[in-house]
Amino acid sequence: MSPGGGRSGTLTDVAGLKVGHHERRTDGWLSGTTVVLGPPEGVVASVDVRGGAPGTRETDLLRPGALIERVHAIVLTGGSAYGLSAASGVVDALGADGIGFRVGPEPGAIVPIVPAAVIYDLGRGGDFSCRPGPADGVAALRAASDGPVVQGSVGAGAGARAGGLKGGLGSASQVVGDGWTVAALVVVNAAGSPVAPDGSLYAAAYLTDAVDAALARAPRVDPSLLAEAQAMALAPSMNTTIGVVATDARLTKAQCARLAMAGQDGIARAVRPAHLLVDGDSIFGLSTSRAAVPDDRMIDALLAAAADCVSRAIGQAMLAATSAGSLVSFRDLADRQVARGG
Amino acid sequence: MSPGGGRSGTLTDVAGLKVGHHERRTDGWLSGTTVVLGPPEGVVASVDVRGGAPGTRETDLLRPGALIERVHAIVLTGGSAYGLSAASGVVDALGADGIGFRVGPEPGAIVPIVPAAVIYDLGRGGDFSCRPGPADGVAALRAASDGPVVQGSVGAGAGARAGGLKGGLGSASQVVGDGWTVAALVVVNAAGSPVAPDGSLYAAAYLTDAVDAALARAPRVDPSLLAEAQAMALAPSMNTTIGVVATDARLTKAQCARLAMAGQDGIARAVRPAHLLVDGDSIFGLSTSRAAVPDDRMIDALLAAAADCVSRAIGQAMLAATSAGSLVSFRDLADRQVARGG
Repeated sequence: MSPGGGRSGTLTDVAGLKVGHHERRTDGWLSGTTVVLGPPEGVVASVDVRGGAPGTRETDLLRPGALIERVHAIVLTGGSAYGLSAASGVVDALGADGIGFRVGPEPGAIVPIVPAAVIYDLGRGGDFSCRPGPADGVAALRAASDGPVVQGSVGAGAGARAGGLKGGLGSASQVVGDGWTVAALVVVNAAGSPVAPDGSLYAAAYLTDAVDAALARAPRVDPSLLAEAQAMALAPSMNTTIGVVATDARLTKAQCARLAMAGQDGIARAVRPAHLLVDGDSIFGLSTSRAAVPDDRMIDALLAAAADCVSRAIGQAMLAATSAGSLVSFRDLADRQVARGG
Repeated sequence: MSPGGGRSGTLTDVAGLKVGHHERRTDGWLSGTTVVLGPPEGVVASVDVRGGAPGTRETDLLRPGALIERVHAIVLTGGSAYGLSAASGVVDALGADGIGFRVGPEPGAIVPIVPAAVIYDLGRGGDFSCRPGPADGVAALRAASDGPVVQGSVGAGAGARAGGLKGGLGSASQVVGDGWTVAALVVVNAAGSPVAPDGSLYAAAYLTDAVDAALARAPRVDPSLLAEAQAMALAPSMNTTIGVVATDARLTKAQCARLAMAGQDGIARAVRPAHLLVDGDSIFGLSTSRAAVPDDRMIDALLAAAADCVSRAIGQAMLAATSAGSLVSFRDLADRQVARGG
């Protein structure tokens, strides 16, 4: 395993992809939306849904064998099933911009393809009716940039919780072989825990130098502090880890499905238990089709990197998350340990 | 085959189900939405997606193995991918009514489960921006009743086109064995044709006495009139046949998936060709769980009836459709034939 991050070590290292966040944290809110935006012609895409309680939109067309090859954006959002309306805002906005799948010669005959997945974060800010809608989706779309992805309790990760701690959104990238980029963006809201009983992150082995400053300071948190923080968290209800794995290598739609499947292994390694009935774990696989890879061995190298990037993104999400309400962040636990001289 | 309709010969013969339509036909509009509403506790459901260009929402949770067993409503709508926002309106309205899957003890901790599928009907009323949104979904929901389902170019069938003629929405029901009811509701917007080259409906053999008055008058239309009408229709683009098959027999979620699969056979028999790349053919299978059936042979009888009901609903849709703009209805062709003394 050669982690080696790309330029920023985040999803936007895959040239052509932009990421935008929007979240609300006051007046009963603790939720948000993240949009992964492709170039106007779209990106080849598929999906793998492995959780028992998914909340999704436009995933049937992503299955190999279906007509549509390219999507224009992926929406990841809080708000459970209600939050899927954020994707409708993005569809309307892209359609107004003239971006979409052309279905006829008329000017308005375009349909933006915007698959989406949600996390359950209802009530995390105190008010169950505060959940992202169309305007939040549009705000995330308009914020999209190709700069380094902002990580932590932002965008769709604003209200996330994982294993009784504050969850969030993380991203990672890796250069494979002769300059191929693989990257992941993950919203960690799992029923299971990214933190082992000994206080270390399951993803620790996947974290690169970029975050080592924090990691070196707190390779693990005190198990008793961990248990204390977990006891403070509200009773678990529904959960989900959702995300995107992308590469600039030219993949078929079916290969994008395999890329997404590989990403699920990254969840399996970084969260225990994972893929439960109360998780909606869903990973989208994207290809920006820069150039064809030389052979199947390189595809397999991309798949291995996809799994590693997802694990690393989960670790990054936990390190970057910030405490909110009764949900304590891993970082805050580490700081408390330092304060205690642990 | 013993068709024998139920009380009204439509989907609402399955006790507990209500159906509501909303459509708009002026100012550039020719589209609408249909809501199939279950009782507050929901109905067991699954789905079968067999078309190459589906537009769907919340179908991943319907797959056997996923946590959610019951849905609160199914939304069928025009508007292509844009129209999925009609389902968001239904979700918000049901949530406000306190109807949904309970995820916690708090009053607002409910998530309405509302899978949806769309047909492509953009621009059929002249304006591509006229497509159902949240308010249209709510209007269809509020119109839901347990009375006989209104058929024709209504609800999600308002803008439908099938095989170059005006399409629409049809429904059918059948009593099986010792009083079990099976019923279907289908929106016919297929790329293929429900009308054979000889001018007869492929579904003719499945039509019951209830519609025989019309059928007897026009068992088939004149092939030259048919070709003339088809030539007048705009060039085909995207299409889709979507619908619901339901029974009052107690089925597992996996058996509901089989009920939906059986319904696809009903499309195969009534539309040629069917299930193309440019079709999004999707059928939801529902069970209201009145009582358990005695044995697997009865389940198979329900499956056979499901296919027949879908074929019959497709025939009914074509007979009840009304001409709009350049799209001529089967009924109008039949009337012209009568006028010509055909």
